[in-house]
Amino acid sequence: MTLTTTSTAPIGVFDSGIGGLTVVAALRRALPGERILYVGDTARVPYGGKSAETVTRYAHEISDLLLGDGASMIVVACNTASALAVPELAQSCPVPMIGVLEPGAAAAVKATRSGRIGVIGTRATIGSDAYGKAIRRLAPDLQVIAESCPLLVPLIEEGLLEDPVTDAVLHRYLDPMLREGVDTLVLGCTHYPLLKPAIQRICGEGVTLVDSAENCALTVAAMRHGTESAVPSAGPDIMLTDPSEGFLREAARQLGIPIGSVTLRRIGS
Amino acid sequence: MTLTTTSTAPIGVFDSGIGGLTVVAALRRALPGERILYVGDTARVPYGGKSAETVTRYAHEISDLLLGDGASMIVVACNTASALAVPELAQSCPVPMIGVLEPGAAAAVKATRSGRIGVIGTRATIGSDAYGKAIRRLAPDLQVIAESCPLLVPLIEEGLLEDPVTDAVLHRYLDPMLREGVDTLVLGCTHYPLLKPAIQRICGEGVTLVDSAENCALTVAAMRHGTESAVPSAGPDIMLTDPSEGFLREAARQLGIPIGSVTLRRIGS
Repeated sequence: MTLTTTSTAPIGVFDSGIGGLTVVAALRRALPGERILYVGDTARVPYGGKSAETVTRYAHEISDLLLGDGASMIVVACNTASALAVPELAQSCPVPMIGVLEPGAAAAVKATRSGRIGVIGTRATIGSDAYGKAIRRLAPDLQVIAESCPLLVPLIEEGLLEDPVTDAVLHRYLDPMLREGVDTLVLGCTHYPLLKPAIQRICGEGVTLVDSAENCALTVAAMRHGTESAVPSAGPDIMLTDPSEGFLREAARQLGIPIGSVTLRRIGS
Repeated sequence: MTLTTTSTAPIGVFDSGIGGLTVVAALRRALPGERILYVGDTARVPYGGKSAETVTRYAHEISDLLLGDGASMIVVACNTASALAVPELAQSCPVPMIGVLEPGAAAAVKATRSGRIGVIGTRATIGSDAYGKAIRRLAPDLQVIAESCPLLVPLIEEGLLEDPVTDAVLHRYLDPMLREGVDTLVLGCTHYPLLKPAIQRICGEGVTLVDSAENCALTVAAMRHGTESAVPSAGPDIMLTDPSEGFLREAARQLGIPIGSVTLRRIGS
């Protein structure tokens, strides 16, 4: 007997750049049969220092592109866009739209024992206080200590994952919140899971790291359960807005993701 | 007797972001009477890791905007755009278009005694070898040692101008070329003059720093001589593509530039 399956419509995933592949890797572990379309907005990366207005416009354009390509769900694999754009965009999106923020906030609330949660992210994510608001909606008494870490994305994109310079920068960002007794740290940027070993080493084993990519994938899996193909899917099809593939190949290798097609798609002008 | 003057059409200046204000500061010293229109493409900053195709498209859009606002000359105050886009754009531009690259290369050729010139810049600028080509066109026997320094712009934008982390990163980039005997170093990114004291300290007084912003301004001054108003101009009028003014105010303060109007201009989509 041959097992025949009908492939369902793909899950659309997007990020400002390549960092969202950490979400793709988690989705592939949770839902190995799903087909994934990924957009990395490499022509306009990064989003982390830009305004809500601009980030919302970019997220809107990319969602339209993914819907045009048949996406049956949109996963916003970018904390900045999740914080600034998802609340507005999800209301008008004709398919379910999931950001990385709410699942990460829920996991942090579940993990903390001291009641003190640290959050690190881009300047835009931290400035929006979106994690703080999401955590306090679930548990108003918890204390959230947030710190924007604008140097981490450039260090990660340079591949300095185990490096004295990165350690010095991490100490500067993390030591104050460790002194305040956080026992849970939300990695509020999809690049950061690539730094997990260094962050865990600096925080010590007593601090639980909450990987927003991982928790987002589990939420998506709960929503999609039973709809995916029984056949493991090929690698994600990747669309970039600028043909800069260097970090793509390196990140995919580190995350163990096979790459399907890679195409250039112009968005905006 | 009253001195009456007619204000000439403004000089248009643009950069991917705010770094090009170093060129504006130099232009104001060289040509105090000129009116300056500045565009910072903060919605798409940085350009330094992006492709020639994308950077050329962005430069084209911004040039059109400046021409529409009456610019009588366009100064590309961005090394990446100067390296990747100016050779093509200058051919079709109806007014003179000057990049920062050729003036910097000429100054370096003039400064070196050892015949070994170091060049630092973004990944895109260094990858294009535009400085190497410009220097060898002037003096084929000179040796050019180039190094891309992608972490410097983020460090500068964080304000870490005198900081042990920045020093560690600078040593990593500069020590190999210092060991090769460079006696002249081209600061091939308009952000870098803000790091001049730290770079000079690490290189030692024996190395001449070539500030491409300064040399570009002198070239423009030679072309504009006699056309400017006798009345010192007000601060530049600034257009940003994303309303993120934090680094703008800080950079303007450090450079001693008064700011005229600041407006948001959407480009592209």
